Amino acid sequence: MRRVYFDHSATTPVHPLVAEEVYRFMTEHNYGNPSSLHYFGQIARKALDESREKVAKAIGAKSEEIIFTSGGTESDNMAIHGAALTNIKRGNHVITSAVEHHAALNAVKALAKQGFSVTVLPVDQYGMVNVDDVEKAITDKTILISIMHANNEVGTIMPIAEIGKVVKDRGIIFHVDAVQSLGKIPVNVDDLGIDLLTVSGHKIYGPKGIGALYVRKGTRWRPTLFHGGAQERLRRAGTENVPGIVGLGKAAELAMENMEAENKRLLTLRDKLIGEVTKRFSHVRLTGHPTIRLPNHASFVFEYIEGESVLLSLDMKGIAASTGSACASGSLEPSHVLLSMGIPHEIAHGSIRLTLGAGNTEEDVDYFLEAMGPIVERFRSMSPLSEEIDYNKNIKDPGNLQSYC
Amino acid sequence: MRRVYFDHSATTPVHPLVAEEVYRFMTEHNYGNPSSLHYFGQIARKALDESREKVAKAIGAKSEEIIFTSGGTESDNMAIHGAALTNIKRGNHVITSAVEHHAALNAVKALAKQGFSVTVLPVDQYGMVNVDDVEKAITDKTILISIMHANNEVGTIMPIAEIGKVVKDRGIIFHVDAVQSLGKIPVNVDDLGIDLLTVSGHKIYGPKGIGALYVRKGTRWRPTLFHGGAQERLRRAGTENVPGIVGLGKAAELAMENMEAENKRLLTLRDKLIGEVTKRFSHVRLTGHPTIRLPNHASFVFEYIEGESVLLSLDMKGIAASTGSACASGSLEPSHVLLSMGIPHEIAHGSIRLTLGAGNTEEDVDYFLEAMGPIVERFRSMSPLSEEIDYNKNIKDPGNLQSYC
Repeated sequence: MRRVYFDHSATTPVHPLVAEEVYRFMTEHNYGNPSSLHYFGQIARKALDESREKVAKAIGAKSEEIIFTSGGTESDNMAIHGAALTNIKRGNHVITSAVEHHAALNAVKALAKQGFSVTVLPVDQYGMVNVDDVEKAITDKTILISIMHANNEVGTIMPIAEIGKVVKDRGIIFHVDAVQSLGKIPVNVDDLGIDLLTVSGHKIYGPKGIGALYVRKGTRWRPTLFHGGAQERLRRAGTENVPGIVGLGKAAELAMENMEAENKRLLTLRDKLIGEVTKRFSHVRLTGHPTIRLPNHASFVFEYIEGESVLLSLDMKGIAASTGSACASGSLEPSHVLLSMGIPHEIAHGSIRLTLGAGNTEEDVDYFLEAMGPIVERFRSMSPLSEEIDYNKNIKDPGNLQSYC
Repeated sequence: MRRVYFDHSATTPVHPLVAEEVYRFMTEHNYGNPSSLHYFGQIARKALDESREKVAKAIGAKSEEIIFTSGGTESDNMAIHGAALTNIKRGNHVITSAVEHHAALNAVKALAKQGFSVTVLPVDQYGMVNVDDVEKAITDKTILISIMHANNEVGTIMPIAEIGKVVKDRGIIFHVDAVQSLGKIPVNVDDLGIDLLTVSGHKIYGPKGIGALYVRKGTRWRPTLFHGGAQERLRRAGTENVPGIVGLGKAAELAMENMEAENKRLLTLRDKLIGEVTKRFSHVRLTGHPTIRLPNHASFVFEYIEGESVLLSLDMKGIAASTGSACASGSLEPSHVLLSMGIPHEIAHGSIRLTLGAGNTEEDVDYFLEAMGPIVERFRSMSPLSEEIDYNKNIKDPGNLQSYC
């Protein structure tokens, strides 16, 4: 069966050169523990240093500002809890947005239970945080602001540089989750004014189980999650995942090399996908910002259709898509991101996310469009709502629908 | 140059079949996110389930009692902090031993800063915890006991089954770090009476960056480190490290298959090593228990010699050894394990650990013994202390020395 993978925001295939590096660092003489003083250990130590350089370079940082972690979730938790607990004597107010990944959002919510005061900023109909809202939310007790760079579910790119300028010189730590943006748009910690940055391997054709946290030199931050050995210069205990780290370094390097050309290519495919889907089907809306969005990201809500049913039908045709965040799949609750954007509960259930990547071609897009036609038709004909609706008119609450697309 | 790897307690080479599995799950159709509902996700999900079965089987547990983590340090921290914070209303007393790995010891020390009362049990001259000491330390406020199964630095196997019996039916959670013991001696959570068990991949010819925490069904424990997605049935947020998990499953399976024959083989090599080292060299003592020790573990202190200098000389001959814990290397402090065993400060600096594994042969042992002769001779001749010493007599504090070997 033809297989089309349109779920690159959930995870990516590992680049063949990355997979080879990972393999190599499990075998031969490359399996040492970087803390060991002998030959085997020193090969591993050197590989760590080189990967750290590569990851640093990808985000415009210094090598010593990179800490390797087990992935985006660990990095977000390390960043948020570390910054909050380190600065508790200076203030107890933390700002985040309503559309963050659960790793950040739940980490902040956990702080609220520990006596921190939390402001969760709203977003507009595109899922975007307003810079003025950030500024207005800041108090003299604010110690940390955590805003994602690009949203995983709807692809919207946040005004991080502008928020960075607002935060600058106020003694507030600015954490950004760049899990979805790295490799797709430029991520430079100096240009964006970022103090802590979350990186994940498996979203950039690197391995799963590896990530990084950037900590700007001089940031009042200390690790609070793991206690143990002196690894990562006392900032992350535990034997380093050398094959994963080597893979992350390689993936970061390749992502930077290919970014411009690859994303131009994906942008063309994405725009065809968005254009054709919104043209061919009625009662479908693009979610997220129409232009300020990731170049590989197309997301929609199909009214009167259950997103998961569509996914399963697409899967039968060999097409892998998602309803939103993979992490939230299986949950009966509709997406917190879509609800925050003002999308009504019942319509949020009809979300479909198509995220393109290295292996995709225009033929994949055509194949999807062809497959999608009968699927939409079938589910619409089955929907009890569809009979009540005049498709030439807007549905019940047009004001509300207009507000998100 | 001939290479002899005698540092299997620091880390192991990845078994070729494991490395192949890891590689396979990064590429082809096997790279999906297990939370995704489509074909790619479901392949990954199935692989997770199968690996969970394998890890469970290796320790006599049920599949649903296994949570995958990023390694031993995460598992120890998850176990200890999760158990302590979940039971804080029932009591605030935690018991551990002086010779635990830093991941456990420092996690417990962190609890002490949060208002928990901590008892750190002493060990005898062999590094062994006394069961009566455990029983005496228990109060009606005790909620958690954390004792390692086998010590990483000196190889001593703790009386875990006996401690398990003491703990049983008292409503106390019993955590055991089995990082060094799994694959070398039987580890059965029911036989040993264990509630929480730490497993690491890279000590059993599996990948780095992967581990597991066993949580007995019904244990009053909840995760406290990571907030985020609903992975691992809400017990460990973050996209699962599928290649690592598959590798851990395979490694656990292989370890069980080979354990009896392999460890018989290693025991012979170890006994030759211990016998010859203590016979050929003066002023050398075995550390740890002479018989109740890991089958692959030989550890010594060489008086009047600096362990790290010996390591570097061995490294020049292609032999990889260690002074104790790899995690503690680079530290100027002598081992907390050796000091706890009553070994004087200046002598603890002369520790050498040789830990055997799959690739080692009798020729390796002979090669080491041959190389070690001139090295010991050279350093002894350079030592300012050696001139003062009559090698036919015991050194300054024989009582103290007698106490540890």
